[in-house]
Amino acid sequence: MQLGSIEAGGTKFVCAIGNEDYQTKDKVRIPTTTPEETLSKTIAYFKQFPELKAIAISSFGPIELRRNSPKYGYITNTPKPGWANTDFVGRLKQELDVPMYWTSDVNGSAYGEYVMSTLFNENINSLVYFTIGTGVGAGAIINGHFVGSLGHPEMGHVRLKRHPDDLDFAGICPFHGDCLEGLVSGPTFDARLGKPGKDVPLTDHVWDIMAYYVAQAALQVTLMMRPDKIVFGGGVVSEAFLKKVRHEFSELLNDYVNVGKLTDYIVMPSVKDNGSATLGDFALALNEYNK
Amino acid sequence: MQLGSIEAGGTKFVCAIGNEDYQTKDKVRIPTTTPEETLSKTIAYFKQFPELKAIAISSFGPIELRRNSPKYGYITNTPKPGWANTDFVGRLKQELDVPMYWTSDVNGSAYGEYVMSTLFNENINSLVYFTIGTGVGAGAIINGHFVGSLGHPEMGHVRLKRHPDDLDFAGICPFHGDCLEGLVSGPTFDARLGKPGKDVPLTDHVWDIMAYYVAQAALQVTLMMRPDKIVFGGGVVSEAFLKKVRHEFSELLNDYVNVGKLTDYIVMPSVKDNGSATLGDFALALNEYNK
Repeated sequence: MQLGSIEAGGTKFVCAIGNEDYQTKDKVRIPTTTPEETLSKTIAYFKQFPELKAIAISSFGPIELRRNSPKYGYITNTPKPGWANTDFVGRLKQELDVPMYWTSDVNGSAYGEYVMSTLFNENINSLVYFTIGTGVGAGAIINGHFVGSLGHPEMGHVRLKRHPDDLDFAGICPFHGDCLEGLVSGPTFDARLGKPGKDVPLTDHVWDIMAYYVAQAALQVTLMMRPDKIVFGGGVVSEAFLKKVRHEFSELLNDYVNVGKLTDYIVMPSVKDNGSATLGDFALALNEYNK
Repeated sequence: MQLGSIEAGGTKFVCAIGNEDYQTKDKVRIPTTTPEETLSKTIAYFKQFPELKAIAISSFGPIELRRNSPKYGYITNTPKPGWANTDFVGRLKQELDVPMYWTSDVNGSAYGEYVMSTLFNENINSLVYFTIGTGVGAGAIINGHFVGSLGHPEMGHVRLKRHPDDLDFAGICPFHGDCLEGLVSGPTFDARLGKPGKDVPLTDHVWDIMAYYVAQAALQVTLMMRPDKIVFGGGVVSEAFLKKVRHEFSELLNDYVNVGKLTDYIVMPSVKDNGSATLGDFALALNEYNK
């Protein structure tokens, strides 16, 4: 069976064809330019596969995913030039006659990690996936379904208790200053230290400060949702960083609730090379086809 | 039809009989003394109703609600003297041969408010209920189901950005100091001002500080779950206080996501006289009977 995945990012689209075992059979990268050019190339790619049964799209946002909204399938008020108010699904539907599933980029990744966990027979029915890169976002699955009634989560913008050694940093979120994204996204390295994160060794105290904030995000999710697992992906995250996060999390939680073994609870993505969303999309496309 | 509700609180149990329209037909209050005495009186109460079809119990906690746990149905490590490790459901099952549904006190209240919303034809499928009283807790429903895979939420213990006029207050939570409960529960009035909350007029700046923290809890829930509605109950909460909370929430959210009209989104319980849990229990007992 041929299933389609569109991982629509702000710099590139990753379009792929997979099968019902979630194996990628073909893949292409399309630079994100204008909506018309990018979506036309995307359509042309999938037109090569006449046996295609369904497509799942996990897109940068914000997006409208309430099916009863007239703007369902749109990228809505994104700051990305040219892309605000783009009828993504509508444009695809004009030329591709297959069922389509539409969700956020982080929801796609969350679903990929969820599917991987079930494939490995972990007893999982809830999972949260954070990405920490240029921005911070998260997708959540509870009882096998995505969380979000009024829209998709925007967990990057929660407020946090400030680290005592970081009180002078105002944060860089244009909307909220020192929300999670304003305190730990990739560009905060430049804002705090005048150099990119890749040039800041893990021995630098700023990594402890970041770990303190990321651990609070994990704590909020833990106390609010009690998920089975929290996955952290994105360019800022490494196993060495997560070790610090687990340490801070443990201090903050103070054994208040049991989350099991921390190295099984706060983890890196199990799908390598940022492939969680593509795998998730194949699974979501299969669900959509089977409906 | 006769349905039973047990609202098991730390100072009293409210046991009630209702019908399938969620109307209370009989009600009794039993002081919470020892487990044996309190549960015996509870059993004796329900034995008066031989037509009883099912009981739902919403209990103080922490409780074990994972059905695959050997401690399912227990109150677990509560600090309440004598009640740690109490087999609540097991004791009832010894003498009452009806289906029983077991959940946390705040889940019961959340379900009551959820049912009320659906009765009023609000298009609701997710709701969070906070209680702010002696402690702070919350129950959450997403897609019609309770949230919590590893256990029930413990939202009272999230960390928050501190209010600039409140930095000297260490908070009173014995586990976490300045978590939400440590900053806004009823006893914080005594800790901050040396007098109980009922003696502190709403013009006192402490109410603005409390509203700032409670608004952050609402913000966390909003950005993490995107529920349809957030209900605040408990002794600390009044409509005048929620007006302050809405103001702070609006400042913090900065229009980042749309939650609709704030007076419909952040609300007092629609069931009066703390009756949300009893109504929720009747609905949960009916679900259990219909299974």
